[in-house]
Amino acid sequence: MIIQPVVNIAEICARKGVENVLLSPGSRCAPLTIAFARHGGFTVRTVSDERAAAFIALGMALTTGKPTVLVCTSGTAALNYAPAVAEAYFQQVPLLILTADRPTEWIDQLDGQTIRQQNVFGQHIKQSYTFPLDVTHPDAIWHSERMVSEALNEAVAYPAGPVHINVPLREPFYPAPGEEVKYDAKVKVIEEETQEFILSQNVSLKLQEEILKYSRVLVVAGQQKYNLHQLQSLYAFTQSTGAILVGDTISNIHEMPGAVRYQDVFLSCPDADKLKLLQPDLLITFGKSVISKSMKLFLRKYKPEAHWHVQPAGQAADTFQALTKVVRCTPPSFFYSLAGSIKNKAAFTKAWHGMNEKAGEFLQTYTSNAIYSELSVVAKVMQQLPVKSNLHLANSMAVRYANIISLKPEQEVEVFANRGTSGIDGSTSTAVGCALSGKKINTLLTGDMAFFYDRNGLWHNYLPDNLRIVILNNHAGGIFRLIDGPKQQPELATYFETKQALNAENTARDFGMKYMAIHTLEELDKALPDFFAAKAGASILEIFTDSPDNAEVFEKYRRAIRGIEF
Amino acid sequence: MIIQPVVNIAEICARKGVENVLLSPGSRCAPLTIAFARHGGFTVRTVSDERAAAFIALGMALTTGKPTVLVCTSGTAALNYAPAVAEAYFQQVPLLILTADRPTEWIDQLDGQTIRQQNVFGQHIKQSYTFPLDVTHPDAIWHSERMVSEALNEAVAYPAGPVHINVPLREPFYPAPGEEVKYDAKVKVIEEETQEFILSQNVSLKLQEEILKYSRVLVVAGQQKYNLHQLQSLYAFTQSTGAILVGDTISNIHEMPGAVRYQDVFLSCPDADKLKLLQPDLLITFGKSVISKSMKLFLRKYKPEAHWHVQPAGQAADTFQALTKVVRCTPPSFFYSLAGSIKNKAAFTKAWHGMNEKAGEFLQTYTSNAIYSELSVVAKVMQQLPVKSNLHLANSMAVRYANIISLKPEQEVEVFANRGTSGIDGSTSTAVGCALSGKKINTLLTGDMAFFYDRNGLWHNYLPDNLRIVILNNHAGGIFRLIDGPKQQPELATYFETKQALNAENTARDFGMKYMAIHTLEELDKALPDFFAAKAGASILEIFTDSPDNAEVFEKYRRAIRGIEF
Repeated sequence: MIIQPVVNIAEICARKGVENVLLSPGSRCAPLTIAFARHGGFTVRTVSDERAAAFIALGMALTTGKPTVLVCTSGTAALNYAPAVAEAYFQQVPLLILTADRPTEWIDQLDGQTIRQQNVFGQHIKQSYTFPLDVTHPDAIWHSERMVSEALNEAVAYPAGPVHINVPLREPFYPAPGEEVKYDAKVKVIEEETQEFILSQNVSLKLQEEILKYSRVLVVAGQQKYNLHQLQSLYAFTQSTGAILVGDTISNIHEMPGAVRYQDVFLSCPDADKLKLLQPDLLITFGKSVISKSMKLFLRKYKPEAHWHVQPAGQAADTFQALTKVVRCTPPSFFYSLAGSIKNKAAFTKAWHGMNEKAGEFLQTYTSNAIYSELSVVAKVMQQLPVKSNLHLANSMAVRYANIISLKPEQEVEVFANRGTSGIDGSTSTAVGCALSGKKINTLLTGDMAFFYDRNGLWHNYLPDNLRIVILNNHAGGIFRLIDGPKQQPELATYFETKQALNAENTARDFGMKYMAIHTLEELDKALPDFFAAKAGASILEIFTDSPDNAEVFEKYRRAIRGIEF
Repeated sequence: MIIQPVVNIAEICARKGVENVLLSPGSRCAPLTIAFARHGGFTVRTVSDERAAAFIALGMALTTGKPTVLVCTSGTAALNYAPAVAEAYFQQVPLLILTADRPTEWIDQLDGQTIRQQNVFGQHIKQSYTFPLDVTHPDAIWHSERMVSEALNEAVAYPAGPVHINVPLREPFYPAPGEEVKYDAKVKVIEEETQEFILSQNVSLKLQEEILKYSRVLVVAGQQKYNLHQLQSLYAFTQSTGAILVGDTISNIHEMPGAVRYQDVFLSCPDADKLKLLQPDLLITFGKSVISKSMKLFLRKYKPEAHWHVQPAGQAADTFQALTKVVRCTPPSFFYSLAGSIKNKAAFTKAWHGMNEKAGEFLQTYTSNAIYSELSVVAKVMQQLPVKSNLHLANSMAVRYANIISLKPEQEVEVFANRGTSGIDGSTSTAVGCALSGKKINTLLTGDMAFFYDRNGLWHNYLPDNLRIVILNNHAGGIFRLIDGPKQQPELATYFETKQALNAENTARDFGMKYMAIHTLEELDKALPDFFAAKAGASILEIFTDSPDNAEVFEKYRRAIRGIEF
């Protein structure tokens, strides 16, 4: 039976700009499946493992900036979405999740695929709605249509995020013979003119006055999508003030001339006198999370007098335990308003740039002379990334290595990483989702644990040609051998590293991907040009290293940093 | 740093009978990992994919009847447990879930692997606790110790289920050099003498009088673990009263002489006059869910005058929309009390047994003459199951086929299926967990969708020799071709069945399992004895069929049923 308000969900989504729909198979969700599949206005795909489906949807929304629609059947399907929903919540990525459900009266009656789906995403969803079960009364129809607009408006409103509509459905689920799915021309749509979050003149004047107190201004960029307009505002601010801009790889500021990028190296310098030279009096931050542990520790220890965090709306985090002011506007609005307002002390500016330069030179020499290990292979892979491509960094070591190495401005590479929750659970799927919704080459740098965890990200019929996967396979969770603490414990190999025997050759065979195994730097040099060739197709480059060797090289690297004369 | 109350969690678990601990790797959870790994009183294993880990834990608890302890790190790890936690909740299986967490003050501060973990399992957990963060005050220590006892008592109290303790932990996570983990000899343990749920004499007398009104008594067993004491009580009741006992394969009553087992066949008989003969005046039910759709539809249509559901405690479901009385005691207490209380009408008893017998004969002939298809291969596999082995049935078609075919009393096979939520997400892992905690052969009958969905159930270092996996591979979710509705839709192949190309050969290679591919009944006949041999080791038998062929055979089977002269 066709339920017109359910059909209208698809129509409202289309009118509000949804492009990508990701279904997972099921019977209860058939009315939704049919509504989206027959509409013609969407790219509709099916992914069977809901955990992977939701991360693929996240990747699509990351690329397009538009909400991806997810549709699943009743029962634990929705729970399998939960890791990606939490990631989308904290990474602020818009998703519209439609979960089919039993009618309310059948909950807890021992029917199959029935759980308690209302508010199933708990505190990791922007808003949860329940679609009306009986849609005969005109008010119920109004409610149902209003709800879809409200949900989509909420998904994209700053800070963007996932929203959930639970859709209870009674049988029959399928159109009767001869019944035709018609999309309602008069369906109600509520538009929303979004807030621009411009700094008011009053506040701007106040800040221009307040900032005069400071002359050691440091700007730290948290995780951000690449944003040219924002970079221009940062350029205007830093050029005119001498303020230092520093950011991790995931902050996507590496195209910015003069940005500090090797902070993860030099902020772990053991010389307190040197570090003291870097202490800001005003710290300005924007964006989401920071990876660099040495930057976190530095700022928590060498606290600024004031810390202003620029964020249009929503709860602001006090990452460095130093927050004194939240400024409610967009970063460009803030930085343009305050451009030219002060002049940083030259000694401060010089200290940062000097140490950055030395760290860069050290890294250059160190990685080009390093023996075969994860650190040196990551350096090689990052140097050879195609210009204007996307780089996806899996947790846990991949993102850390990449943050040490950093990217060059001329590479024009955009960086993605699931740092909302920093899980290893969906990196492959997210990269697949990005690759599916764009034309650039998408390279995923991942470890063996993260790769096999999310192997089902490849299990569907849409493997994109522009996907490249680089696996750092040390047959374990190698991170546990690199950090202090676990490596001294007798449980290291069994319960922390967790040896695992797999390599990706069979997986590549399963999914018809090109596969190359690497055991030396020479093999890597030879393989990379072919691997990154535009026409190579979906490929896996598996780089085998030994976990204890990596640990040794990493320890040497740390010792070498401590020896740099900054 | 060693936190004694955290070490004591392990000690209390040991004293309260916990045997199996399943860790997933992480740094935040290191104090828990070390407490359990060093204790010596547990079997401790590590599984990297938390979704699989939780289902393996479920399988272990199903076999042992004792709570399995799950330990994971902070962040989305806990969310990956959610599907299995919901299954454990509805299937009433005890689990103690320990999730490491950031200290409260660091939530929402953009630190890595940080979500909102309190009450993260929402409505699918029996009880959620928060471990005290500061454990210096004696009351906090008392609280921490009491909590572990309370949680374990709650996990096993009827109805059993999962409980969750969220454990916020501050750095350092690891013992300092020279620091020794000591288990506290004086740790507080609270025992619980469990309720026996015996029918009181008063209620017993009342029911003995009430039951006299009825002479067409039907007992329907829902999903239950195999329980000899319960079967004996059922035998006493049915033998003395002539009451009919009927149950699906998952009710584990197939050892019971005289139990009706082919109801899924004959209750779909289209002859209303025949079905009318089977209408009970009193329906007595116990246990959890019923699979057979024809039994559900029959009882909802041919409603009894009264429906008594026997369940010691907890919410009772009204599966057949006919419930009139909930009796709060154990099934054995009920059935022994009422044995001999009435005499069923002979015509009623005869009608049920007659139709059951005819259905059995039909099935015997039909499946032995059927062409190669899923229905006939399932019949062969089930006939050849080793005596006294365990059978795991994956959702969605595997469990339905098996329920049609049914088991013979002399096979002494115990049946498991995740019918709490009926998801396809954890069947392999659950079977692995059962196999790991017992010596019997554990055979999993699964489909290709369920198998690849949960491929990570095999990704660890503990693959048990007593595991046998039979995959019905039709390269799709074949169920959608068998049920009315989707098969008439143009979206069938793409969006319902969801064609998938994988076979399990590479998977078997990945995990070092024996592998056999089957394409004919002859190959199957030849392969089964080796496959089920006690020393065969962990093996996969992959049976390839064609989805449209299966649909055709299944349609013929349905037509044949409608043609039986009952």
